[in-house]
Amino acid sequence: MRTVPLKLVTLVAETVLEAQLVPELRELGARGYTITPARGDGSSGVHAIDWEGQSVRIEVICTPEVAERILEHMWSEYFEHYQAIAYVQDVGVVRGEKYG
Amino acid sequence: MRTVPLKLVTLVAETVLEAQLVPELRELGARGYTITPARGDGSSGVHAIDWEGQSVRIEVICTPEVAERILEHMWSEYFEHYQAIAYVQDVGVVRGEKYG
Amino acid sequence: MRTVPLKLVTLVAETVLEAQLVPELRELGARGYTITPARGDGSSGVHAIDWEGQSVRIEVICTPEVAERILEHMWSEYFEHYQAIAYVQDVGVVRGEKYG
Repeated sequence: MRTVPLKLVTLVAETVLEAQLVPELRELGARGYTITPARGDGSSGVHAIDWEGQSVRIEVICTPEVAERILEHMWSEYFEHYQAIAYVQDVGVVRGEKYG
Repeated sequence: MRTVPLKLVTLVAETVLEAQLVPELRELGARGYTITPARGDGSSGVHAIDWEGQSVRIEVICTPEVAERILEHMWSEYFEHYQAIAYVQDVGVVRGEKYG
Repeated sequence: MRTVPLKLVTLVAETVLEAQLVPELRELGARGYTITPARGDGSSGVHAIDWEGQSVRIEVICTPEVAERILEHMWSEYFEHYQAIAYVQDVGVVRGEKYG
């Protein structure tokens, strides 16, 4: 089975940010996303803020270029003022052409 | 800690397909699965169908051979008529022998 | 965008274990975690126990050393008496310094 090598970007953020984030992901080039409800807890050494509560876990399968744009966007727009998690992994995707 | 290198197959599909998919995964060799509720949205360039609504995210840890079979099955049985996502990743699994 | 190479440890366990596991993860060095509700089914060839029901899927982003400790802990404390899944993957993490 031929799979296409792409990137899987996972974001975890407060639920309140979902409505803002989703259209931004579209503008950055994401062709789709999968959202699961989550609860998170993490202590930021930088801001000494504790974060506990309802969150969303947003997954985007995309090209390396779009992944780069999403991570940059998260960093520049959200990481200073919100507790958020953003990470990227390699994946092999069935019918991956449609994510391009 | 010795971990066994295996494949993690992730499927995202409409909730209505769960009852059909799960026994199929068993027949294809999956020894177990983890299901989380999800919401998805994706536009297929091929079919110009928008898909938004309740979905399930199904994860299967398995051998490369079983992963291959699952991805083939998804492609041949589901990708023409349903919006679905299928991707594969490498994982190191504790007590991975039992997934063989 | 510079990301930091870290480990993503995923645990799937019965919901009843969550209250016990979370403080243990902290003690083992985890700086945070993300929990999603899950349902799992798996047959263990070793114990011939079927496991079906409400579970939690716990994700921890951490250093390789902490990942090693968490997997060891799961193996020594939980795998004999409980159905649990534990696996590890490589990830590139935005602002990964704070997970160290």
